[in-house]
Amino acid sequence: MLLLSFKNMHAKLKTLKGKLSPKLNLSRFFKKRSKKAGLPPGSIVHIGDKITEKIGISLIKYGDNFCEEKKIENIEESFKEKDDISILWINIEGIHDTSIIEKTGTFFNLHPLLQEDIANSQQRPKIDEYADSFSLFLKMLTYNDDNNQLQSEQITLIFGKNFLITFQEGLKGDVFETVRARLRSGKGKIRKRGTDYLAYALVDAIIDNYFEILEKFGDEIEILEDELMQNPSPYTMQEIHILKREILLLRKSAWPLREVINHLQKEENPLINELTKIYLRDVYDHTIQIIDTVETFRDILSEMFDIYLSSVSNKLNETMKFLTALSTIFIPVTFLVGVYGMNFKFMPELEMKWTYPALWVIMITASIVTYLYFRKKNFI
Amino acid sequence: MLLLSFKNMHAKLKTLKGKLSPKLNLSRFFKKRSKKAGLPPGSIVHIGDKITEKIGISLIKYGDNFCEEKKIENIEESFKEKDDISILWINIEGIHDTSIIEKTGTFFNLHPLLQEDIANSQQRPKIDEYADSFSLFLKMLTYNDDNNQLQSEQITLIFGKNFLITFQEGLKGDVFETVRARLRSGKGKIRKRGTDYLAYALVDAIIDNYFEILEKFGDEIEILEDELMQNPSPYTMQEIHILKREILLLRKSAWPLREVINHLQKEENPLINELTKIYLRDVYDHTIQIIDTVETFRDILSEMFDIYLSSVSNKLNETMKFLTALSTIFIPVTFLVGVYGMNFKFMPELEMKWTYPALWVIMITASIVTYLYFRKKNFI
Amino acid sequence: MLLLSFKNMHAKLKTLKGKLSPKLNLSRFFKKRSKKAGLPPGSIVHIGDKITEKIGISLIKYGDNFCEEKKIENIEESFKEKDDISILWINIEGIHDTSIIEKTGTFFNLHPLLQEDIANSQQRPKIDEYADSFSLFLKMLTYNDDNNQLQSEQITLIFGKNFLITFQEGLKGDVFETVRARLRSGKGKIRKRGTDYLAYALVDAIIDNYFEILEKFGDEIEILEDELMQNPSPYTMQEIHILKREILLLRKSAWPLREVINHLQKEENPLINELTKIYLRDVYDHTIQIIDTVETFRDILSEMFDIYLSSVSNKLNETMKFLTALSTIFIPVTFLVGVYGMNFKFMPELEMKWTYPALWVIMITASIVTYLYFRKKNFI
Amino acid sequence: MLLLSFKNMHAKLKTLKGKLSPKLNLSRFFKKRSKKAGLPPGSIVHIGDKITEKIGISLIKYGDNFCEEKKIENIEESFKEKDDISILWINIEGIHDTSIIEKTGTFFNLHPLLQEDIANSQQRPKIDEYADSFSLFLKMLTYNDDNNQLQSEQITLIFGKNFLITFQEGLKGDVFETVRARLRSGKGKIRKRGTDYLAYALVDAIIDNYFEILEKFGDEIEILEDELMQNPSPYTMQEIHILKREILLLRKSAWPLREVINHLQKEENPLINELTKIYLRDVYDHTIQIIDTVETFRDILSEMFDIYLSSVSNKLNETMKFLTALSTIFIPVTFLVGVYGMNFKFMPELEMKWTYPALWVIMITASIVTYLYFRKKNFI
Amino acid sequence: MLLLSFKNMHAKLKTLKGKLSPKLNLSRFFKKRSKKAGLPPGSIVHIGDKITEKIGISLIKYGDNFCEEKKIENIEESFKEKDDISILWINIEGIHDTSIIEKTGTFFNLHPLLQEDIANSQQRPKIDEYADSFSLFLKMLTYNDDNNQLQSEQITLIFGKNFLITFQEGLKGDVFETVRARLRSGKGKIRKRGTDYLAYALVDAIIDNYFEILEKFGDEIEILEDELMQNPSPYTMQEIHILKREILLLRKSAWPLREVINHLQKEENPLINELTKIYLRDVYDHTIQIIDTVETFRDILSEMFDIYLSSVSNKLNETMKFLTALSTIFIPVTFLVGVYGMNFKFMPELEMKWTYPALWVIMITASIVTYLYFRKKNFI
Repeated sequence: MLLLSFKNMHAKLKTLKGKLSPKLNLSRFFKKRSKKAGLPPGSIVHIGDKITEKIGISLIKYGDNFCEEKKIENIEESFKEKDDISILWINIEGIHDTSIIEKTGTFFNLHPLLQEDIANSQQRPKIDEYADSFSLFLKMLTYNDDNNQLQSEQITLIFGKNFLITFQEGLKGDVFETVRARLRSGKGKIRKRGTDYLAYALVDAIIDNYFEILEKFGDEIEILEDELMQNPSPYTMQEIHILKREILLLRKSAWPLREVINHLQKEENPLINELTKIYLRDVYDHTIQIIDTVETFRDILSEMFDIYLSSVSNKLNETMKFLTALSTIFIPVTFLVGVYGMNFKFMPELEMKWTYPALWVIMITASIVTYLYFRKKNFI
Repeated sequence: MLLLSFKNMHAKLKTLKGKLSPKLNLSRFFKKRSKKAGLPPGSIVHIGDKITEKIGISLIKYGDNFCEEKKIENIEESFKEKDDISILWINIEGIHDTSIIEKTGTFFNLHPLLQEDIANSQQRPKIDEYADSFSLFLKMLTYNDDNNQLQSEQITLIFGKNFLITFQEGLKGDVFETVRARLRSGKGKIRKRGTDYLAYALVDAIIDNYFEILEKFGDEIEILEDELMQNPSPYTMQEIHILKREILLLRKSAWPLREVINHLQKEENPLINELTKIYLRDVYDHTIQIIDTVETFRDILSEMFDIYLSSVSNKLNETMKFLTALSTIFIPVTFLVGVYGMNFKFMPELEMKWTYPALWVIMITASIVTYLYFRKKNFI
Repeated sequence: MLLLSFKNMHAKLKTLKGKLSPKLNLSRFFKKRSKKAGLPPGSIVHIGDKITEKIGISLIKYGDNFCEEKKIENIEESFKEKDDISILWINIEGIHDTSIIEKTGTFFNLHPLLQEDIANSQQRPKIDEYADSFSLFLKMLTYNDDNNQLQSEQITLIFGKNFLITFQEGLKGDVFETVRARLRSGKGKIRKRGTDYLAYALVDAIIDNYFEILEKFGDEIEILEDELMQNPSPYTMQEIHILKREILLLRKSAWPLREVINHLQKEENPLINELTKIYLRDVYDHTIQIIDTVETFRDILSEMFDIYLSSVSNKLNETMKFLTALSTIFIPVTFLVGVYGMNFKFMPELEMKWTYPALWVIMITASIVTYLYFRKKNFI
Repeated sequence: MLLLSFKNMHAKLKTLKGKLSPKLNLSRFFKKRSKKAGLPPGSIVHIGDKITEKIGISLIKYGDNFCEEKKIENIEESFKEKDDISILWINIEGIHDTSIIEKTGTFFNLHPLLQEDIANSQQRPKIDEYADSFSLFLKMLTYNDDNNQLQSEQITLIFGKNFLITFQEGLKGDVFETVRARLRSGKGKIRKRGTDYLAYALVDAIIDNYFEILEKFGDEIEILEDELMQNPSPYTMQEIHILKREILLLRKSAWPLREVINHLQKEENPLINELTKIYLRDVYDHTIQIIDTVETFRDILSEMFDIYLSSVSNKLNETMKFLTALSTIFIPVTFLVGVYGMNFKFMPELEMKWTYPALWVIMITASIVTYLYFRKKNFI
Repeated sequence: MLLLSFKNMHAKLKTLKGKLSPKLNLSRFFKKRSKKAGLPPGSIVHIGDKITEKIGISLIKYGDNFCEEKKIENIEESFKEKDDISILWINIEGIHDTSIIEKTGTFFNLHPLLQEDIANSQQRPKIDEYADSFSLFLKMLTYNDDNNQLQSEQITLIFGKNFLITFQEGLKGDVFETVRARLRSGKGKIRKRGTDYLAYALVDAIIDNYFEILEKFGDEIEILEDELMQNPSPYTMQEIHILKREILLLRKSAWPLREVINHLQKEENPLINELTKIYLRDVYDHTIQIIDTVETFRDILSEMFDIYLSSVSNKLNETMKFLTALSTIFIPVTFLVGVYGMNFKFMPELEMKWTYPALWVIMITASIVTYLYFRKKNFI
């Protein structure tokens, strides 16, 4: 029976493991770029996973009082739409077809190294300034409920006098739908301001999304805390570690963000309007808040790991104390009964009538005394 | 009996747990803001808990030699009170009715983003400078004796030439009563100075309150220390962790405070009088002192956790040594009595008269020698 | 007997605890200031322990070639002594009589906030500059041999053109006796220089005292090290922690000191003579040395805690190995003797003459082989 | 049998150790330089391992539309090739023949200290600026698949107006083959730009190589993670530590790299063209990315070590619980059977017919109840 | 026998301890300076150990083409040698005779505080600039092979226009022999440059010596690593800690060195020639390298301590598993043989002929099955 239960225990642990060992999925932290080795700088090589087959291109052209939207097949169509009065936002979903990047680069006069960076989904969040444009590299995070993991998608945002281009890696959907809605409806000031304000709105949407991720993490931490207090198991511990790793990924995206926004906010460039800077200050506050919360979560999770470890050693201690108490009570009396099981010819006690019950009395008394003593010493 | 006591132990632990697992209450660290996703910047959306039903508005208008107090129903009434000679302090308790924020914002010409921030109780302590006003976001902490947890309430403090507005989240009571008393009585210089001095007095009241929180923490730490030295239990350990978490919250409010006060003190702005700056330096010293004490408390609590862990492993060691000593004494003699319990036909020892008492002598001597040896080696 | 020794062990530990659990004495780190809540700034309220009943006031007035000393009852008497030629040092022992502080403040024109700070023994070491005076807040440390704890006494040092005032909390004695001796004897340059040099001499005396504290700590660390290497016990561990806590207090006083001295040394103020600055550089070097040593002591103590922990787990390991070896040797043979204690009718071995001695041979051989095997494997 | 398996276990561990204990190979972190002690500065002494017997020297001379390659025996041959129009790249593989370094130094007018540094393979990555040349010291890393260790080779890169010299330590092969190919083919801008661009291309090649190392590390970390989740063993733990140490080496090369590139990029020197600086910014981004990834890997490996430790203590706990359960079930019943093995004359139970089966019933019932109780308490 | 081996184990550990517990020798980190308390600044008091009885004084006077060496008895003799053309290097071994320091100070016009510092062997490495001279305080380290400990000797180096004075604490020998040899032979530029170059050469010699210390440490770390992988023992652990402490001492000397050299290199002072600065840059690189290596060694030693701890807990785990397996196999069968040792009158099994062998079969089968099961589960 014991062996059976022993077997069960192992089986149970195995099930847990199956449930618990989502791959580290290191590629989310670091992507292979071996293809690139040895090519001259400016060579546009796609680095990352090819996520979608077909690259979707959509245009939004707007001015003070109009807003047109279009889905196009061919990147060249968008070039004809560019003029000096209205603002053109080209959104390209997919970076594995490097010819599109190249054509766009040629038309908008983008530096070869910038073109190279667009195709490389492994950029750290950064901002680069060029003569007549800015490029921002950011990470859009989504929480995949299937495997409880964060997904990271790189967004490149390039804006000049009256154009703004966004490159996405191609994961379905984005966080810009609310910006599009504001453009369509003309609510707020978005149609009255320049490309810097549009860029701000997009960055703001990405960062707002981080708060949603943090909320999900917050919920999970609360559930884990309950578990830890009520019924800590190796499972709880693994969950803590998985969460820690996800937060590591979030952290890696959030910290450089601060520099990016700070740089943009301090920039003395005609492309960035003074009025927009107040909005950038607001975004900056948000990034600080995100970093703050990420660090708080890290602290709380580390605490939880400590609590787990000390609860394990408490349990071990309790088990040992119980085992010791058990041994202390039974080992001496077992010795005693052994004594009277000996076959010596001359053991006078064995012949007397009262010795057997007397032994029982002695053994029971000893056990009770030991038990009470342990009880008092808080040993059992 | 053993099983019984075993059961008791579990029951006891359970009671402890019930007492010990106050919810993490993560929302104190981080509030959900999903409602906001997708709205244009400057949209005033309340983020946080709706604490009170009715928003209370009170006015204090004062000059060198007068001070009027009024409770009003309608925010518009306050606007009529504003003039260029006396100073007007409007205190609004509750931020969930965004229309009040909006009306105030329109009248006092507050930036839309500032209005948005007021309604969002999740601000990090910060200071923002505008053309003709300053806004300060601070956290007012109160210690809830019911659940031994800190409560945090956001205070927004906006002041311009001769007005000062405070927005509170709406928890009952605040820490400003002493400032009001000074205004009423006209003691000190408070009625003779400008809004900057009033702002200083309010900030000082908030920070003074932090010292009271620290005192409470100090008392708890001393109690815990006693417990740890006299009778460490898993309960002590959990208390340490709960305290650590509360201090994490205090810390999150205190560190940014330093920057806020420092910024205010360094400010070159006609709104901030040179005379007030000496008082701000004093407040700055207080924030440094608070941070210092918070960090000291953290260090002490970490130390206490280490002491707890090493006391657990000491106990485990003592238990193991006792068990080993017990086994060492009884296992060999139990073997011996087993030997003479064997039923071999030809065991000459069994027939001799003196072997039984001799065996007793041997066994007792061996036990005593072993015992003394262990004693000497400090093993028992 | 075992139970007895078990009892002894507990008793022994209790004695140790009595010896070892000096109160944390948190008030040394942080003093209550609740009395103050709600008073206007500049209100002089005593915060701290009332140490002495009677406040002692002493004067030293000196010039190039004279030095007068006086003990006075009434602070007003000192004001008459002030003139523009000689230097007046007023030393006030006790800060709980705020009227003395107020009168002094009024006569010497001290800022109300400064007066408030003097009465508050909870200041962090700091330096404040005013129009015509400097104020320094420092901690004088003394090692109380009775309870092996540091005592901290706040010294406020205010100096202007030709006066210097020191406020002490009122602990018996101070570290200034050597400075007084130099003033009396006229040795060195102390009577020929200004108040800045006197201030330097006093600060230097305070800091020199820190080195003595460090020496005491150094001695204790060496004793502890010996103990740790020869005979580590829970007692050693607690000593380490107590020392760590004392060093935390020293550290809290030493780090801000560096800023204070550095500020003074960099000051461009006619009150601070260029010649004095070279001496301040020397004091600055001393503070750096103190901080350095404090940090080294912290490192060494952390190391010692690690050594303690690993020595505990080594011991546990040794105990377990011994227990396992014991079990491995006796459990199988105890089983064997059990076998031949069975009462089966048909056990042919029992009838043969040579089986009993043969069993002994087998059991002894098995034990020896196991023992030697363990020996070789370094298991026992 | 048990002993046998015990022996096997030891044998197994030994095999693992043989596999697992690659020498720390500390010389990769730190090379002996005793030979040098006492020589005047500028003495060229080779420090490091003599890797190759014969020093290989190769030349590449190129201009806008030509590119010549040559292998030479004698360093003097290269000096004749230098002219003012084309660019000369001299690549010297081996630094143990100091006469070559000296002759080169004399011809190209290199500072004696620079010559000394070239011969010393223990340089930290650094950049030194001289009147008419720059020198860069970098580390080229290669992953040795034989012993799973990184190998580090020092590259010194000196460039002036129209020459560039590279000194390698002499390990077979280098990472410059792709640069040579681009020079030969004339693809890209490499032949049209100056020595600064060539230097950039070489540095870029070295850094690109770092990414390949990181990929290998990433692969190993993923394998280790799987192992850790499925079947953690001391072997896994050692692997984690070995990886940590390799990453320490990578880190030591990567951090100073950042300063080097940053310095080069900020340099105001006619030797560094403005156009090249944009490329240097790109390289700088890469170094940041490398450092970022190295730190992430460190974090992940630390996490993994924590997981390992807590999995060990979980296992210990499980084992102890099993042992305790086993003891709790069998010790009491063994005591009972001992009782009825006693030889007292008057034990009435022994005479009754139903007592033997009754005892069985009692023992089995007790075992089952205990077992079920433990089961419910999740103890087995 | 067991007890015997137990005794042996203790004896063995004791021997190890004798070998292993070299005194912390804290005075190497911190020297007592109580003698000094209360003296006016500028009082020259020797702090440190009196190492040598007789203070040795030696002179080297050199110019472009001559170099005279002299050992003198009396410091005054050296003053006569000073002239404005040649450079005079006075080397004084021993600082406990303060009259020598005073006379030198008076002749060379050294600041009283500088004189005080020379006599105090507890200086932190630092540089002080005076009107017409520089003073450098450095630590010369030597590795004492007798007790495997570092020894630290303070060197004060004072140089002005054409004199350089070195004060050593008086340990036998120094690291300057190579510099003297270069002066004697006139090799290199040392006789052609000023005192700044001589100072550089001496500092360089001191720092070169640090590399030798690091080499010794490197060797020890490699030996320890081998030990840790092959046969970790408490001895290994103590060695790790001893090494850590020695490195702490080295670190304390190395870090401030960086500031000293950096200060010297940045100095705008006619005493420091521009040509010398390139050499100082080289020395600066060396100090960075030393710090780098020290930190790497610290990291490696911390790693090693972690490996040790986890190897201890692995062993504990193995031991427990073995003990559990042993118990699981023998406890049930011991119970069974106990059953058939009972003396009940009516135990039908006892009467049957086949039950005894059958029991053997059952017991052996059960053991083998359990054993195989454990084997498969990797439990033994």
